[in-house]
Amino acid sequence: MSLRADAQRIMDAALKAVLPKTAVAKALEAARFGPGRLVLVAAGKAAWQMAAAAVRQLGGRVDSGVVVTKYGHSKGPLPGLEIYEAGHPVPDENSFRATQAAIEAVSGLAEEDTVLFLLSGGGSALFEKPLIPPADLDRLTHELLASGADIVEMNTVRKRFSAVKGGRFAALCAPARVFSVVLSDIIGDPLDMIASGPAYPDSSTEEQARAVAEKYGLTLTEEMRALLAVETPKSLDNVETHITGSVRQLCLAAQEECRALGYAPVVLTASLSCTAREAGAFLANIAQYHHGGGQKLAFLAGGETVVHLTGHGLGGRNQELALAAAPGIAGMSGAAVFSLGSDGTDGPTDAAGGYVDGSTAQVLREQGVDIFAALKDNDSYHALEKAGGLIKTGPTGTNVNDIAALLLES
Amino acid sequence: MSLRADAQRIMDAALKAVLPKTAVAKALEAARFGPGRLVLVAAGKAAWQMAAAAVRQLGGRVDSGVVVTKYGHSKGPLPGLEIYEAGHPVPDENSFRATQAAIEAVSGLAEEDTVLFLLSGGGSALFEKPLIPPADLDRLTHELLASGADIVEMNTVRKRFSAVKGGRFAALCAPARVFSVVLSDIIGDPLDMIASGPAYPDSSTEEQARAVAEKYGLTLTEEMRALLAVETPKSLDNVETHITGSVRQLCLAAQEECRALGYAPVVLTASLSCTAREAGAFLANIAQYHHGGGQKLAFLAGGETVVHLTGHGLGGRNQELALAAAPGIAGMSGAAVFSLGSDGTDGPTDAAGGYVDGSTAQVLREQGVDIFAALKDNDSYHALEKAGGLIKTGPTGTNVNDIAALLLES
Repeated sequence: MSLRADAQRIMDAALKAVLPKTAVAKALEAARFGPGRLVLVAAGKAAWQMAAAAVRQLGGRVDSGVVVTKYGHSKGPLPGLEIYEAGHPVPDENSFRATQAAIEAVSGLAEEDTVLFLLSGGGSALFEKPLIPPADLDRLTHELLASGADIVEMNTVRKRFSAVKGGRFAALCAPARVFSVVLSDIIGDPLDMIASGPAYPDSSTEEQARAVAEKYGLTLTEEMRALLAVETPKSLDNVETHITGSVRQLCLAAQEECRALGYAPVVLTASLSCTAREAGAFLANIAQYHHGGGQKLAFLAGGETVVHLTGHGLGGRNQELALAAAPGIAGMSGAAVFSLGSDGTDGPTDAAGGYVDGSTAQVLREQGVDIFAALKDNDSYHALEKAGGLIKTGPTGTNVNDIAALLLES
Repeated sequence: MSLRADAQRIMDAALKAVLPKTAVAKALEAARFGPGRLVLVAAGKAAWQMAAAAVRQLGGRVDSGVVVTKYGHSKGPLPGLEIYEAGHPVPDENSFRATQAAIEAVSGLAEEDTVLFLLSGGGSALFEKPLIPPADLDRLTHELLASGADIVEMNTVRKRFSAVKGGRFAALCAPARVFSVVLSDIIGDPLDMIASGPAYPDSSTEEQARAVAEKYGLTLTEEMRALLAVETPKSLDNVETHITGSVRQLCLAAQEECRALGYAPVVLTASLSCTAREAGAFLANIAQYHHGGGQKLAFLAGGETVVHLTGHGLGGRNQELALAAAPGIAGMSGAAVFSLGSDGTDGPTDAAGGYVDGSTAQVLREQGVDIFAALKDNDSYHALEKAGGLIKTGPTGTNVNDIAALLLES
């Protein structure tokens, strides 16, 4: 039971470090704002929590602001701020209205003023003001989806038809300073990709955008053709960006808690990208070598694994990773593997992830569960349920990918 | 170039540690034989090299002996020893003749005598004396293969029809002591599996053997039925076993050389078992986290990966692992991944493995090679050839699985 308790403490510590309020508090610790006005703009699925944390920390310092989040994600009014709920993953009229309000809030600011820009996942749909009629944007999106264009190509074109993407929001804020806090949900933290980078210099060029339009024979109106030729900001000297709550911080917090619990921790990666099953098997292979070495060890891997759907069961990538590790650590005392989605939702289930140890394979065998068959059917949820290996946290309000760990007690 | 040179030194050191002669020399260092006769019996693909190393080290101490290896694997006469070449992977008359000679050589020994038993991969076919007519054994093997029985089930039945398997050879040596040196080519070193364990207590039972025969409805003659009921040795108090040259030693030697070169090495596992592509991607993911940390790091993984054949190209699991790592380390200076098969033969190619670094992806792009397409076509050989990434050693005379490594110079 001590391993399970350790796993719980490690997961709790990791999650806490990437909660919007912890993440914002950390980013604001070192913040020095100008003497002028302070306008807050928050966009994304965690916008309300990030804004609430900022208002709490900065007290009456925030003069005004706009918060736009997904329907059902606002927890109520915040002093001095306009709160909007809007469409996600498809932007709607409320997205446009909220974004227009944000643009107005940052218009006419002076050099000594500051825009505190709080960005989280989902911002791409929630924070948008198209420069072309919505019908044209819809058609473009459908053409791009049908063409087989990849996400980079799609964004290269679409951001040119947006008033705020590709660094344009930060340009609208100038000459005011922009203090940007980004809660990253994309591995590697590519700042021009997260919500299409409203406050980050755009790395794509007009030439590339035209090449994509030609490659896929996109239908362009005169207006669109003109917009395609308008360059996005290539540098922004009024922006200071703080990435926070990334998967890297999830790993570092887990590593710190491992140390506190007496484990010698190794973070293997913060960009795990292989299949869930192979990642689980790999962690079990590591256990086979290090088990019984007389040392408390922890191997941590952050990132986002992939599940190949071969069956019709219930599960998620974290549950599948954990279950896939069970055969390889079968019979080992003092070995456990867990995997956890930081958003608290793993696949279409009410679990956040899974936990297995050296006894799991035996427990399942006694209940007639064939682990390999369960994996083949993508039915990790029901297998882990029978082994008492489901991890449930409820929605956490954050989303910075997953963390998996192998714990060895000796 | 320094990374490539480091990789070469690490590979050389690892291979050297598991060469039959090094492995035998190491095992014999601590050997204390009885005052009586010393009879040498060597079986397997590395039997000649192991016997030669023992004779060299022990000088005139070896009184007599028998060596049986695969056709073309003998390098000539050895003083005092009878050398046989025989069939592999299917045993033939020469296998039986050589094994009979070995049985005679160890017959009538006394308690103060010693049998030096040198076993390597391939011993299962080369060291065999069936207790039933070869035609019956053939039929049994075909029935088992057709039935879908797994390797454990097959061995459980077959060893009961052998005069030497399942610990019986050691029983025939009694009361003489058996000093057994095993060059392991099976992950985890399961001594009752390597060559079906001629000198190791058998863990399978008569009951299990009968159950397998019933399960698959095997055709059994009266003679076979009787033999099925004869128990194999469950303990052998005249045997001392030294496993040598295992994949674990391959890893430890690589680790030691890494240290000598200034790297801080971590052996992740000695039982890597996932697909080659995912293992390569995993090593690249590790590079993404640790790269640029200002430390010379090495992550090592021994074992045997799996290749899923999806194309018709040329390659092997080691080449595929290396190539699969290339995209993930693209552009990183001071990062390299290699993977090497210890037998010097990776897949149906003249290469032993592959090497990639941060420049490989760019080099291949310039030559019009799409890495993902090459992987899909299982054509790692030709891609690595164009990038100068093939590792060639020629046959090494040993076979203790593979070693893969990620090297980070800073």
